[in-house]
Order: sequence, then C-alpha cells, then structure tokens
Amino acid sequence: MKKSIGAKTIIYPTPVLVVGTYDPAGKPNVMTAAWGGICCSSPPCIAIALRSATYTYHNIVRQGAFTVNIPSEKHARYADYFGMVSGKDTDKFAVSGLTPVKSSVVNAPYIEEIPFALECKLIHQIEVGLHTLFVGEILDIKAEESVLDEKGMIDIEKVRPFFYAPEANAYYRMGEFLGEAFSIGRAVKS
Amino acid sequence: MKKSIGAKTIIYPTPVLVVGTYDPAGKPNVMTAAWGGICCSSPPCIAIALRSATYTYHNIVRQGAFTVNIPSEKHARYADYFGMVSGKDTDKFAVSGLTPVKSSVVNAPYIEEIPFALECKLIHQIEVGLHTLFVGEILDIKAEESVLDEKGMIDIEKVRPFFYAPEANAYYRMGEFLGEAFSIGRAVKS
Repeated sequence: MKKSIGAKTIIYPTPVLVVGTYDPAGKPNVMTAAWGGICCSSPPCIAIALRSATYTYHNIVRQGAFTVNIPSEKHARYADYFGMVSGKDTDKFAVSGLTPVKSSVVNAPYIEEIPFALECKLIHQIEVGLHTLFVGEILDIKAEESVLDEKGMIDIEKVRPFFYAPEANAYYRMGEFLGEAFSIGRAVKS
Repeated sequence: MKKSIGAKTIIYPTPVLVVGTYDPAGKPNVMTAAWGGICCSSPPCIAIALRSATYTYHNIVRQGAFTVNIPSEKHARYADYFGMVSGKDTDKFAVSGLTPVKSSVVNAPYIEEIPFALECKLIHQIEVGLHTLFVGEILDIKAEESVLDEKGMIDIEKVRPFFYAPEANAYYRMGEFLGEAFSIGRAVKS
C-alpha cells in the first residue's frame, strides 16, 4: 500500500537540456533546463518549460527560436554552470570558453563542443503557471561526426549523456544496457 | 564542425512514463510513453505527448485525469509490454498480473507494484501535430514506503529508474553518481 507524499515535481530521469538563444544585442546565451521533452513526431517537436524570470525566456519570445544542446558526461560542469548564473549579468560563453555557432536554420546559437543540438523554431507558447511551456519545431539536428555510427545516426554509447535527479539534486551517469524496446515485453504476454 | 543529420526526435535520456487511465466502462488501462516531462513548479504539472490513435488519449479526454507511474529497472518488461499492445483489445492488468489501485484524488488508476505514481488532473490539451500534449496538474504522489528515505522523500537509489534511448530503441539502467547539481559548475567560474 502506497503513502501520500504530496504534490511534487518528481520524475526520473529528467534530461539535461542546454538551451541556446540570442539576446536583443545578438549576444549568444545558454541556460540549462531539466524540464522538457520531445512532444510530437510530425512535425518533430520538443517542449521546454521556463520561468519568465530567466533571460532565455525573453530571448525565445523575441527571436522565436532556440537550440537544445545535449551534453556528454564530460560536459557536466559546464551544464551545471549554465544553470547557476543568468545571461543578464554574465557572458557564459566567454566565462566557459565554449564556442557559439550560429544555426544555419534558425536565429539561435548552438555549442560547438557539445555533441549534438536540435535547432528549433517556436510554434507554441503555453502559460502553465510559474513556468511557460515553449514548443519548438525541430528543423534540423547538428551533430559531431565523432558521435555518429556507421549509418550516420547518433550513437548513445558515444554521446554518454547524463541525467538530473530532482529530489537528490544530483547528476547521474547513464548505466548499462538493460534490454531492447518492443522486445523484452514479450515475456509478459506469454 | 558539426554535420546536419536532419530533423529527428532525439534527446537523451527520455523517461519511461507508464500512464494510467480508466476507459468509459471503468476498465483500468496503462500505456508507456517516452515523450513527456515536468513542465511547471506552481502549480506542479507534467506534460505527456500522445497520439490520438491510442486508447489512453481518449480515456484522458473523457475522464480529465491520468496517473504517471515511474517504474524501477525490475519492471522494465512490464513497461515495455504496456507500450506494445493497445488497451482497446487487451486487459493489460489481467495479462501482466499487476494490480490497479484507484487514485484517491483523481479518476484514474495507478499500479500497486510500481514504486511511485503522480496523480494528475488534466488542465491543458495542446494539438501539436500527430501528437497532442496533455498537461496534468499533479495533485499528489503516492509512493511505496520502501523507496522513501529517512525524511520521507523519494530516494532515486532505491527506485533504480531506467530510461529509454530513442535511436537505439533500447533501455538503459541508471549509472553512477556523477556530481552535485548547482555545485560542480563552480569549477567553470573560477
């Protein structure tokens, strides 16, 4: 029998999404968000939830565009840093030494050193409460050759992504292969 | 320099969300979704993306309620099974042998054997494209005592969640602790 623990915002895992935007002066900025996910296959879309207190929120509203960069575990300190300070006061690219690259398809920057980035055009903005949900259509993905497999697709074992655990306030590595999807469930049917 | 690989729906990690609903006859159903995430802190909300072809989609629209169950790695075969067949033709609780429990706060069932469940009231429905984004306000979480820490909070190390890797079409275990959030980023500033 389960116990009530109250209304909390806990799911596992939550991704580490590094959101890239330009400010009104054209300065590239990045912030880290844990709340978001893919939300449509056709058109391909991603949703990210941001507070209006963030610098990124206003950049997305103004530019109608953003990128979502997926870091490797070796980039964890950068992703954490991007969530600790505001682009209003800080040039996070200058401090981190990472390199902004202007997307070829939307008016937003991605990070050269991070393995891959989704380039998104804002198509919906939903006011949920303290957070606003931005839905971006994914127009392209730019990826490093080093994380692609022989078919040219992204290989998770080469990316080595990590995730955020909200309650623990901690990052965890990806673990071992557990099983094939649409396959291990067959054991339940029989 | 990065390479274009086209507009794809890839982020890592994606969660394994087991969505519980009642059908019009009151039959409990569960399906597994990888596309969703927390989307607001106040009110606490989660967004999940579903196709209208699913049985769950119509149950949510009718009942205005759903649960999101977070499985442990030991439940991987059940979660996979719940994504392989439709509740339209199958009683997935009967086949799996798992136990539906009616939520005390919304008209939706959660799974007794799975460590914790978010109980959600539908507050927004956004037509994105092939998928619809359902935003549910989290009214409570029900959790097993066995996954709580000494403060009564959910302990990720006890839950042992797993995640889905879209391109690989595979499940992966959670890995080792990587670092504290809002902490390891300090190394970048100095």
